Amino acid sequence: MTGSTPAPFTADDYRARMERAAHAAGDAGLAGLLVAPGPDLVWLTGYAPTAVTERLTLLVLAPGRDPVLVVPTLEAPDAAKAAGAPVLTLRDWTDGKDPYAVTAALLDARGRFGVSDNAWAMHLLGLQKALPDSSYASLTEALPMLRAVKDAAELELMAAAGAAADATFEEIRKVPFAGRKESDVGADLAELLRRFGHSQVDFTIVASGPNGANPHHEVGDRVIRRGDMVVLDFGGLKDGYGSDTSRTVHVGEPTDEERRVHDLVREAQEAGFRAVRPGVACQEVDRAARAVIADAGYGEHFIHRTGHGIGVTTHEPPYMIEGEEQPLVPGMCFSVEPGVYLPGRFGVRIEDIVTVTEDGGRRLNDTTREMVIVE
Amino acid sequence: MTGSTPAPFTADDYRARMERAAHAAGDAGLAGLLVAPGPDLVWLTGYAPTAVTERLTLLVLAPGRDPVLVVPTLEAPDAAKAAGAPVLTLRDWTDGKDPYAVTAALLDARGRFGVSDNAWAMHLLGLQKALPDSSYASLTEALPMLRAVKDAAELELMAAAGAAADATFEEIRKVPFAGRKESDVGADLAELLRRFGHSQVDFTIVASGPNGANPHHEVGDRVIRRGDMVVLDFGGLKDGYGSDTSRTVHVGEPTDEERRVHDLVREAQEAGFRAVRPGVACQEVDRAARAVIADAGYGEHFIHRTGHGIGVTTHEPPYMIEGEEQPLVPGMCFSVEPGVYLPGRFGVRIEDIVTVTEDGGRRLNDTTREMVIVE
Repeated sequence: MTGSTPAPFTADDYRARMERAAHAAGDAGLAGLLVAPGPDLVWLTGYAPTAVTERLTLLVLAPGRDPVLVVPTLEAPDAAKAAGAPVLTLRDWTDGKDPYAVTAALLDARGRFGVSDNAWAMHLLGLQKALPDSSYASLTEALPMLRAVKDAAELELMAAAGAAADATFEEIRKVPFAGRKESDVGADLAELLRRFGHSQVDFTIVASGPNGANPHHEVGDRVIRRGDMVVLDFGGLKDGYGSDTSRTVHVGEPTDEERRVHDLVREAQEAGFRAVRPGVACQEVDRAARAVIADAGYGEHFIHRTGHGIGVTTHEPPYMIEGEEQPLVPGMCFSVEPGVYLPGRFGVRIEDIVTVTEDGGRRLNDTTREMVIVE
Repeated sequence: MTGSTPAPFTADDYRARMERAAHAAGDAGLAGLLVAPGPDLVWLTGYAPTAVTERLTLLVLAPGRDPVLVVPTLEAPDAAKAAGAPVLTLRDWTDGKDPYAVTAALLDARGRFGVSDNAWAMHLLGLQKALPDSSYASLTEALPMLRAVKDAAELELMAAAGAAADATFEEIRKVPFAGRKESDVGADLAELLRRFGHSQVDFTIVASGPNGANPHHEVGDRVIRRGDMVVLDFGGLKDGYGSDTSRTVHVGEPTDEERRVHDLVREAQEAGFRAVRPGVACQEVDRAARAVIADAGYGEHFIHRTGHGIGVTTHEPPYMIEGEEQPLVPGMCFSVEPGVYLPGRFGVRIEDIVTVTEDGGRRLNDTTREMVIVE
């Protein structure tokens, strides 16, 4: 294991991201950003500690100041190897010292700070105690679009991850489904994702028959049967960037109703995709997909939002959901994944990752959206 | 993947743990405990969500009230399958609703609550906003010993994890070291841990020659050479419980100084182990090990605490460190792992997991602590 992401970014790339983030913090009225280990820290510095423990590691960004990484002394040598380390000051602290005092000395005592969503509560409590007049907002609330717009190098990595997921689908449609457990097909999916270059598999949903009606069913012991609809939804990270695609296949010949529902979801997915262009609010993508399903009388069976952003994680802002007025910006990447779920019977979901271009959307997944018949 | 831990505990076991935790919260003057996904939630309920996302999942425990698990609607079916679910009330919330309002309705608006160390900062901020007169302490600060004392079934699982780590050491000492990269030996360690039943490998430290002088070095590209000391430190989870052991081996014949330092660390480890008995403060274990090293003139080269607790994680309270006055209690499990680190030259660390018994300590690792010569 190493302390750095495999993505081919340079210290200058990280410097630019940190400057942009600090600037955005200032524009949002924040005294700074406090970034804990996780996707934000990887994106800003290339640094991912081997293990996230109770020892405080925190990047402090403030407009007009040089970035400082507060880090446990034991982990400083690893942190110093990160691709962004040359443009960071490391401020290490030793077991037995108070890391919140070390951090507080870097902060405006009355400032308001954006703090990583996934920073540990114990660390936030430590800072609140060290600086009782400071205040905090979650980074996603304060700067939801911090990582949302991908640059050209990031888009290449996103496209490569999408292509690897598509290659996985092209292989999985050839394997036997009938008579095997969902968990067996799920293991095939994981193996294929890795074979096509994924370093991390985040989910391998194989939801057959009535299990398909639960959008969060992963895999189970159910034996897949001829006549089943099977929702496949899989993804993970390849070279530090995410994939996520869904297709719904049928084991043997589908019924007319199954075909009709699948066609409906495909039309909804197409409508969501066609709504994508710069300046359109996220909620319009949701509305476009949802209208197709509602008009056909299945509105109550589309029980989740239409999509979520994706980048160095497989699940992040922007969200394609009613009420999200954020306008789309070229370089944003997110899923468009409507579904219909008929309790006790079956479900259908079709999902592509889409990126916003100057004049519309571009799919990063492009296997057939027609219903595929499997054996 | 499933939503439950593989440990063979029943709903009654989880009920007992939750009651004990709620009672301890009351004794500590807390209105309740708020437990996020992670080791505390696994230990209390058997529930581990497939993925930890921005969607709030939170167990609410309060003295004299039934436990409630706040959970996203999409994840409720998975949560309902957890081994502890039969003794929980699930309170689900749907995308678009405010999960903090749902949680706040379960809480004393002016109460002080213990919150999981690793709860996301965004969730703590959400609760602080929903209940401005509430206050919070990290669970480890409020109830550091919540999971520290293991019951008989847990101790069996700890012993089995330790035996699997020992079996790993017995195999790794047979593999070739000289001429191979640290990362190759690290991969062997990971494979062996899995072969002997680990479902999760947390660390495989192979620190050769001068790398051994950095206690947090993991593995690198350095090619191991004849004449190197090599610190091996590895562990993970087997059936939901942790292993963690270190041995320092030598490639070919060691020098007199290398033997002397290794003997010193072995004596320090023995002294730390012998200090273990009920009622002794944790810091006495640290002092006992440290005195041996300091008396030999190497005190400045023992640059970390002597040990850490272990259970459903490989790194938790109690800590064997100066200033920790917590008395040892039968059933506690922790590492005793002194080391000497000579910058630019080599390091030595010897580590066993030890559990407290009625009349002393019992090692859960027991491979030889004499220096092993490898090829």
